[in-house]
Amino acid sequence: MSYPDHLGAARGDIPSDLLLKNARLINVFSGEIESTDIAVHADRIAGIGPGYFARETIDLANAFVAPGLIDGHVHIESSLCLPAQFAAAIIPRGVTTAVTDPHEIANVAGAAGVRFMVDASRGLPLRIITMAPSCVPATNMATTGASLGADDLQKLLNDGVVHGLAEVMNFPGVIAHDASVAAKLDAFRGKVIDGHAPGVRGKALNAYVAAGVGSDHECVTVDEAREKLARGVFILIREATNAKNLDALLPLITPANSRRIGFCTDDRNPSDLLRQGSIDQMLRRAIAAGVDPVDAIRCCTLNTAEWFRLHDRGAIAPGRFADLFVFRDLKSPVAERVYSGGQLVAQDGKLLAALPSPALPKALTNTCHVVREHLKLEVPAKGKRIRVIGSIPDQLITEHRILDATIQNDRVVADPARDLLKIAVVERHRGTGKVGVGFIQGFGLKRGAIAGTFGHDHHNIICIGCLDAPMYAAILNVEKMGGGLVVIDAMDEAVARLALPVAGLMSDRPVAEIASAYERLLAAARELGSTLHDPFIAMSFMGLEVIPSLKLTDQGLVDVDAFRHVDLFV
Amino acid sequence: MSYPDHLGAARGDIPSDLLLKNARLINVFSGEIESTDIAVHADRIAGIGPGYFARETIDLANAFVAPGLIDGHVHIESSLCLPAQFAAAIIPRGVTTAVTDPHEIANVAGAAGVRFMVDASRGLPLRIITMAPSCVPATNMATTGASLGADDLQKLLNDGVVHGLAEVMNFPGVIAHDASVAAKLDAFRGKVIDGHAPGVRGKALNAYVAAGVGSDHECVTVDEAREKLARGVFILIREATNAKNLDALLPLITPANSRRIGFCTDDRNPSDLLRQGSIDQMLRRAIAAGVDPVDAIRCCTLNTAEWFRLHDRGAIAPGRFADLFVFRDLKSPVAERVYSGGQLVAQDGKLLAALPSPALPKALTNTCHVVREHLKLEVPAKGKRIRVIGSIPDQLITEHRILDATIQNDRVVADPARDLLKIAVVERHRGTGKVGVGFIQGFGLKRGAIAGTFGHDHHNIICIGCLDAPMYAAILNVEKMGGGLVVIDAMDEAVARLALPVAGLMSDRPVAEIASAYERLLAAARELGSTLHDPFIAMSFMGLEVIPSLKLTDQGLVDVDAFRHVDLFV
Repeated sequence: MSYPDHLGAARGDIPSDLLLKNARLINVFSGEIESTDIAVHADRIAGIGPGYFARETIDLANAFVAPGLIDGHVHIESSLCLPAQFAAAIIPRGVTTAVTDPHEIANVAGAAGVRFMVDASRGLPLRIITMAPSCVPATNMATTGASLGADDLQKLLNDGVVHGLAEVMNFPGVIAHDASVAAKLDAFRGKVIDGHAPGVRGKALNAYVAAGVGSDHECVTVDEAREKLARGVFILIREATNAKNLDALLPLITPANSRRIGFCTDDRNPSDLLRQGSIDQMLRRAIAAGVDPVDAIRCCTLNTAEWFRLHDRGAIAPGRFADLFVFRDLKSPVAERVYSGGQLVAQDGKLLAALPSPALPKALTNTCHVVREHLKLEVPAKGKRIRVIGSIPDQLITEHRILDATIQNDRVVADPARDLLKIAVVERHRGTGKVGVGFIQGFGLKRGAIAGTFGHDHHNIICIGCLDAPMYAAILNVEKMGGGLVVIDAMDEAVARLALPVAGLMSDRPVAEIASAYERLLAAARELGSTLHDPFIAMSFMGLEVIPSLKLTDQGLVDVDAFRHVDLFV
Repeated sequence: MSYPDHLGAARGDIPSDLLLKNARLINVFSGEIESTDIAVHADRIAGIGPGYFARETIDLANAFVAPGLIDGHVHIESSLCLPAQFAAAIIPRGVTTAVTDPHEIANVAGAAGVRFMVDASRGLPLRIITMAPSCVPATNMATTGASLGADDLQKLLNDGVVHGLAEVMNFPGVIAHDASVAAKLDAFRGKVIDGHAPGVRGKALNAYVAAGVGSDHECVTVDEAREKLARGVFILIREATNAKNLDALLPLITPANSRRIGFCTDDRNPSDLLRQGSIDQMLRRAIAAGVDPVDAIRCCTLNTAEWFRLHDRGAIAPGRFADLFVFRDLKSPVAERVYSGGQLVAQDGKLLAALPSPALPKALTNTCHVVREHLKLEVPAKGKRIRVIGSIPDQLITEHRILDATIQNDRVVADPARDLLKIAVVERHRGTGKVGVGFIQGFGLKRGAIAGTFGHDHHNIICIGCLDAPMYAAILNVEKMGGGLVVIDAMDEAVARLALPVAGLMSDRPVAEIASAYERLLAAARELGSTLHDPFIAMSFMGLEVIPSLKLTDQGLVDVDAFRHVDLFV
């Protein structure tokens, strides 16, 4: 900002670049709605009130104008898009800032992955705030492509790459003051430290907060959220594709506590982003559920901005970024116009801004290495009772089931009639040849297989199938794409696929194309019998060895409650 | 804080240092009042809730516990006390943090004065946050002892001496983007920049805010405060000895906007501090006026902490400072116990903490230099109509009056029968011999004179009297004390005085002694006919050449509206 110029516009001595007349400004400071004019100069708000003149004047005819919405915690990688196309999806929704955690690419490519995401975020109409992934790898019970120690994170901070420390998922380590976690917290002392503490209550919660963690997006009940909020935790209510907490948590919001509440999407697949939206969808649903519209808008703007110390946004006030969400219906805000930094970047749901295409570093497009000769999915029947991952619809936690094995020719096999499928996790970062094989219930496939390189947090190839043949086909198909998602039918043919060449996580195609491909994958999986809303996201969490109760990594089954590997056979 | 130890206490694995049982915790996050226990370890809150054990347990028997109160803007020098004795006055009131602006001593001693105040604040039970004085000197129409340029301020910031930029009073310079003001704002870009913009509204306000200034304590009407709040200004409601805005501004506070409001005392004389209190008095009056007690407490705690980015206080939560204000009556909170950093520092109004006594740097006790041979108070009658400062009770602004001179022996003289007194401002920093002489109404003295070295902002000797003889006596008396306040009676004798040897602003005596001496000064002034609540504070603003309309400096009368010197005679 050129201050002499900007103050000239603010004083009304020189024309502003843009004047939005007859706005109904959602004032997140006063809690009121003002009928007024808004003068914008360069990328900032110059002034509010009468008497301004400008090079371009738009009569908003009493449209409402709120600050651009803020997503308080999101993994861009879950959209399967690069940052520019993630922006293309949510800018038309009125979301102008996203606080992101490039945790997925960090597990594949480490600090280089984080730096790539930051580089790829430059010049976008979406302001992307990058937090440092705090838990890479999640544990040493899986093989990842990279790890980030306190020193690596400190360097990212010193280099101005990251704004704070992202969701500190290792809450047992925080609470116990484990040295490696403590070193990371110490590196970010005085900065924003975001949390992730599902079910942590009472004294454990006190210790987690005392250690310096300040926010949380893992509450599932109002009771849990109320306790955390009262202990000083900023509550980010999450509505992800696979973890929907909005309905359960809306009763949390009261006029007396709403300042301590923000909204976030965490992980949304490209189809949900394009069809349902982002924070704007949460806003509409909060208002529909009875939350005061201005309070609800504060949860999407000022509150989150204040918690993350983003003092240059989150409100419409002189000197702040002219990021604006213009809408017509206060009962159901839908973006009519979206301004980012004073530029009209979307109108009536259509993106107007031009988006840069970053160059892809070669190292990030060569991350999928399978040693075919080591790829053995057969399971010799060494016993009759096996551990089975019991997946639960729309939940990340699984049940740890003990069931009779289905045995054919001295091999334990999948048994679709019992909804008992085989699951495999194939190490793909280093070509170590490590493969974990287990069994799972809850996916409903009757034939074929699905596979993908998007598998939290290690992002090895994860595959679920009814027979070994389509599983081999799925895994090799994914490898051939350099990463991606695939559905293999009963003929062992790929009937739908989406290449994710960037770190095996993201496509470099336009979001609409990615969403369509993704929808074809979902439809194809349904054709094979899948009963889940999104079997790919569900599958991606079946390898996450920090969420109870039974998970599978390339190193084998993990009893998460006992926090150790266990054998398939009981 | 030792984290391993602290987290052990938070987890309840080791005993805490202190357990406050049966507290009714004022939860500034949730807006609710919780019946609970509070565990304190070292200087921080360890945990909240049941199940803690401690070396010392206190049963609070359902007393209320709020966070320690925060004064959002105060000049310690106005208490005439050094920081330790200022703390002695307000710690028993429950105020545990004061955001201070050492603006007065900076005008006398520059950066050395600021550093002295910071040094003298170390180790106190009161957490003193020091902001950098932004406007030293106020103008070049008065002679000060020092000046602070952008480079000086930058050095204070770089050295960790100051937290942000204190009240940017030169609002015309901010709005016009004057180079010297802009350089100071630029030096503090990204830090807290506190404001001072009386009556600034509309486009000028937009420009002031756009320039980066974020708060204000100069509102006098709800209408002005509402406009500023809506533009994003954090409103500090002020209740000073000489500028009382609380009653007028309490109607500003609503549940929807209270998060953007804090309280401050700005300038309080030692008598008011000891007899009436500090922020605690404002809290009681806000509650009595009908503000929700928890909202009122937020105005004294969390709100101010958030605005000043003091994330380690302002709430009772794990990891924050154990600064606690314990009281019994929610309708009228009076501190029963005060904890600062986990230590019981006051009980039932009595200070328990031991206070350090800082060494006084010699340079700060030798600041009063009057050239007696240049001291001429006579006014030859060069005309018949004169400009007269019309002082108004309890206001800093004055009227610019044109009146007939009272002339005796070709000299313009004071005329107590018309309440027309002589006023003189004598340069005292450099011994330049500069003396400004004028006339003033509104003080009511019938005989004698009063004088002092506390005179905003230049802090030259300022004297008001009925005849020249007691005025000479007053000025020389003050000089002899090395700075201070004095009342001279009709016999030209000092009947009350208070030495202020530290920069001519502060005493190194205990606050109770200072307050008693101050009260004797007030009583003596009343004896001489003074009609004002506090003629010394009123006098101290008669030389402040930035507050309309007519003021006097050592360089002569200033027409503040025209922003230039003017002659006595019209």
